[in-house]
Amino acid sequence: MSVITSVNLVDVRFPTSENLDGSDAMNKDADYSAAYLRLVTSDESLYGCGFAFTIGRGNEVCLMAIKALASRLVGRDAAELCEHPGRIYRELAADSQMRWLGPDKGVVHLARAAVLNAVWDLAARRAGVPLWQLLCDMEPAELVDALDLTYLSDVLTAEEAVGMLQDQRPHHAERVKQLSRDGFPCYTTSPGWLGYSDEKLDRLCREAVAGGYRHVKLKVGADAADDERRLAIARAAIGPDTHLMIDANQMWEVPEAIERVQALRHHDLLWIEEPTSPDDVLGHRTIADGVRPHGVGVATGEHGMNRVLFKQLLQADAVDFVQIDSCRLASVNEIIPVLLAASKFGKPVCPHAGGVGLCELVSHLVMVDHIAVSGHVEGRVAEYVDHLHEHFADPCVVRDGAYMLPTAPGYSAEMKPQSLASWEWPDGAEWKRRRAGASA
Amino acid sequence: MSVITSVNLVDVRFPTSENLDGSDAMNKDADYSAAYLRLVTSDESLYGCGFAFTIGRGNEVCLMAIKALASRLVGRDAAELCEHPGRIYRELAADSQMRWLGPDKGVVHLARAAVLNAVWDLAARRAGVPLWQLLCDMEPAELVDALDLTYLSDVLTAEEAVGMLQDQRPHHAERVKQLSRDGFPCYTTSPGWLGYSDEKLDRLCREAVAGGYRHVKLKVGADAADDERRLAIARAAIGPDTHLMIDANQMWEVPEAIERVQALRHHDLLWIEEPTSPDDVLGHRTIADGVRPHGVGVATGEHGMNRVLFKQLLQADAVDFVQIDSCRLASVNEIIPVLLAASKFGKPVCPHAGGVGLCELVSHLVMVDHIAVSGHVEGRVAEYVDHLHEHFADPCVVRDGAYMLPTAPGYSAEMKPQSLASWEWPDGAEWKRRRAGASA
Repeated sequence: MSVITSVNLVDVRFPTSENLDGSDAMNKDADYSAAYLRLVTSDESLYGCGFAFTIGRGNEVCLMAIKALASRLVGRDAAELCEHPGRIYRELAADSQMRWLGPDKGVVHLARAAVLNAVWDLAARRAGVPLWQLLCDMEPAELVDALDLTYLSDVLTAEEAVGMLQDQRPHHAERVKQLSRDGFPCYTTSPGWLGYSDEKLDRLCREAVAGGYRHVKLKVGADAADDERRLAIARAAIGPDTHLMIDANQMWEVPEAIERVQALRHHDLLWIEEPTSPDDVLGHRTIADGVRPHGVGVATGEHGMNRVLFKQLLQADAVDFVQIDSCRLASVNEIIPVLLAASKFGKPVCPHAGGVGLCELVSHLVMVDHIAVSGHVEGRVAEYVDHLHEHFADPCVVRDGAYMLPTAPGYSAEMKPQSLASWEWPDGAEWKRRRAGASA
Repeated sequence: MSVITSVNLVDVRFPTSENLDGSDAMNKDADYSAAYLRLVTSDESLYGCGFAFTIGRGNEVCLMAIKALASRLVGRDAAELCEHPGRIYRELAADSQMRWLGPDKGVVHLARAAVLNAVWDLAARRAGVPLWQLLCDMEPAELVDALDLTYLSDVLTAEEAVGMLQDQRPHHAERVKQLSRDGFPCYTTSPGWLGYSDEKLDRLCREAVAGGYRHVKLKVGADAADDERRLAIARAAIGPDTHLMIDANQMWEVPEAIERVQALRHHDLLWIEEPTSPDDVLGHRTIADGVRPHGVGVATGEHGMNRVLFKQLLQADAVDFVQIDSCRLASVNEIIPVLLAASKFGKPVCPHAGGVGLCELVSHLVMVDHIAVSGHVEGRVAEYVDHLHEHFADPCVVRDGAYMLPTAPGYSAEMKPQSLASWEWPDGAEWKRRRAGASA
């Protein structure tokens, strides 16, 4: 029997703010970070890695919450954890003292996501398959038992979820074959960070199209004249046949969002992302009413705190592109219910990614969505940002603008030991070197 | 010039779970706790205290977030902080790295509340007046400058807020006089904890009515037969003229909530509180549609994460009693906007209280609502729970079922040094004694 013997925690931070990578109107100085954990077992070859993604300060707060939750796993039988991944989820969710700090949102929810990500990584490693395959191969009733359907019964019952998953089973094999060949389409945000110069924007847009991307996304929301100029540069660079999306990162009030998007509509925009507060379901509906007549859809969800928010976005018809975040929702247990609900409402899921390791996790989740839930790729496109993949043991593979099917066992969540040693905050080798350089 | 020289942090926890005080269907074992801070200044007589309320585990996570935010205050001029309380609020809100962990919700938001509570306590002490008075005496434009109206412009602009506050100024003096005499009506939850026996329930209900209370609230939501029996006992004990409210603490799905409340409607219920997920604006609207025809209103907000949630509850007509929490919303800066919005929509604010120190803070907030915002008391009643007030230097005063106007300078947020020493977790004298007793 393999037992969880300890939990290793690492505060990993990268100085991405130095190059304005990841810079947008709201997040001007993101230092991409991970509150990282590794579940160690009594069997040296068996372990599970997980993380929450943050953008710097406060990563230590997430780690403390992870520590509080993950300590419950020590001493547990790995087989029991892996075979009943709904049990530990429910146990963590039922800690009413920790629940008070959310509930189901903020730091404690990020921490639950990180711990469950590690449990799923462990489960897939133990089974010797990539996570997408583990999930697709589970019996529907078994998978649904692992899901958190709390507060969703007005749109999705367990019985309905089992039925939906069952309906897709006959098509699994053909979809796996198709995904092995074509992958799952992705788009790139790499050209569009607000801090990049016009020249860099132009060059990166052209490179994106040359690299096979059919979608390019730009950050907007600070100065209106800048937005107009940058969109013109981007549209000229990518031509009329590539989709262009914009992302305001929550900068606007509701009426302001409608005005600002209407002013930019001549650039032929596929979506406006995060136009306002991520919590404002009714506001997103109002914005959708104002921009849909101009052919612009509403995308949100990167900061969508939990399944109850997504339920409402769907019920209110407030969203056109459902952007789940693999580390903000409480792992697979909460993400698959959102995939199911979105499928039922006929809305495409286009996951948020980038940051540290989000693309790695998303490369599994989009496959599960396509193979076992929604069953089609039309209108779906996952975010991809080409940063920091070199720190992962099993980095995602993107080819001709598409995520390829992961093949290694696990959830692709493991970071390289060398990367952890170099970038551990505050005393990793690279951080020490930087401080020495700064004081020299 | 007085400067903030340090921030003292204390993890205070009380073993309230031992007596099932505070027990409800969701929170079975609450250990009422405070993530407490004290802003120390270079002037020994000037300080400010604040806290976030939690129910045990995770209090240390809140403290770590408080530490991250409050460290920014060290070295600042106390006068500048106190005279421009909107500035430090905006500075903390603008930390985009910390913001990522919410935004505006969960642990980082509780931490911002705690820090700002301390700033307001400091400001009122410095002015030598109770906080309610400081706020009511501020020029409307000055007060509005301190408020967070972000994401609210579709229901409340700064100009409108100034106008609303201005309109009430001529009535301040008479209202202060009336409140000095009658206080602000409150209700008691003390009889109704789920863990109490039927005999204790009956006795405490009778004591409440004898003590002047016109409202009594019971916890429900676990076993339906228990709810029916306990409500019959309570209604018999309080008679037909005292209002009876029930609180399900988020236990139900949306359709279930409607069924359960309809089954209890013959007990003549004023409101059903927290019937489902606190995040579910649309669900509360559906529930309201199902219970209002039976004379039952919907109350929620104790876990209302931020002003954007309250905005939507009002816009959707999903709430009849607005239960702001003095430590979950980001202090006065975010609470007054909710008071203003509720007043505009004609909904009474009935603050959540209890826990550690919530009644102390609420005894200021209800006065501000009455004097400077809503202007009337009808339909308004604030929660009061008679626990743990002995640990506060300036405990709230309740007389004949009404909160009395606080008179001491500050926000009544200071805990007694002896209480902190006794109940600091894990090494306070009382906790040590308990562990010694347990191991003896």
